[in-house]
Amino acid sequence: MRLTQRTDFALRVLMHCAAHARREEPLTVKEIAEEYSIPLNHLTKIVQELGAKGFLETTRGRGGGLRLLRPAHTVTVGEVVRATEQDFCMAECFHPDQQACVLLPHCRLKKTLEKALSAWMRELDAVTLADLVHNGLRKPRKIHLHF
Amino acid sequence: MRLTQRTDFALRVLMHCAAHARREEPLTVKEIAEEYSIPLNHLTKIVQELGAKGFLETTRGRGGGLRLLRPAHTVTVGEVVRATEQDFCMAECFHPDQQACVLLPHCRLKKTLEKALSAWMRELDAVTLADLVHNGLRKPRKIHLHF
Repeated sequence: MRLTQRTDFALRVLMHCAAHARREEPLTVKEIAEEYSIPLNHLTKIVQELGAKGFLETTRGRGGGLRLLRPAHTVTVGEVVRATEQDFCMAECFHPDQQACVLLPHCRLKKTLEKALSAWMRELDAVTLADLVHNGLRKPRKIHLHF
Repeated sequence: MRLTQRTDFALRVLMHCAAHARREEPLTVKEIAEEYSIPLNHLTKIVQELGAKGFLETTRGRGGGLRLLRPAHTVTVGEVVRATEQDFCMAECFHPDQQACVLLPHCRLKKTLEKALSAWMRELDAVTLADLVHNGLRKPRKIHLHF
């Protein structure tokens, strides 16, 4: 029972970007790959995927780099996990093309696992990238304007 | 995010035993392997493991077979999953020997994943093998004796 390595790395890249959101010079894939000992090719693919899925803005060339496309307090861990995990087929009976199990007509295992998965996801949906990093990133305070 | 195939098969063997708890002739590994299209060698290992961990009683030889060692309503899905999953290392930082991630000092990801895992496990701890199979297996009714 574990997350894929891709999700693990994706979360760390996004957390790193969240933690360094105020840095002036742009973050680079190379720098993050070195810092987290992730092979550069592997990380490049993950960053491209996170770009395609609207989590990161990536700019090429000199002075280019990556940054969070949305503020860290609006991106939940659940969202990232849903976007990067290949599937949530907890058992064979989750696959639509594998419905041969003789228990299926009287089995409640699938429903039980689905319920457990929802409980798991609820926890991850309640936490944002900003919550994960202790660097003072907070939701901007609401400004109350009195007229 | 998925259970190992071993857990999937282990749950099905135990559910099958629960569903056939009242059958007179003993269940055999061969019969279950055929019914669920699980390779016999693979299933034999799983059954041995379930025997060693106190879920199944296995008797060898002619007339031998397997049966649940404890009543189905006393065995929770969570218990089986804990016994058969290799580990619950959801991310690299769960491994005690891999603590190199530079985020660690200010990271709350591990705590978040642990909390989500607990929520997941709570759901599985609330369901027993008897709950999973619709064959009229119920907790024995309490008999109130009046003296």
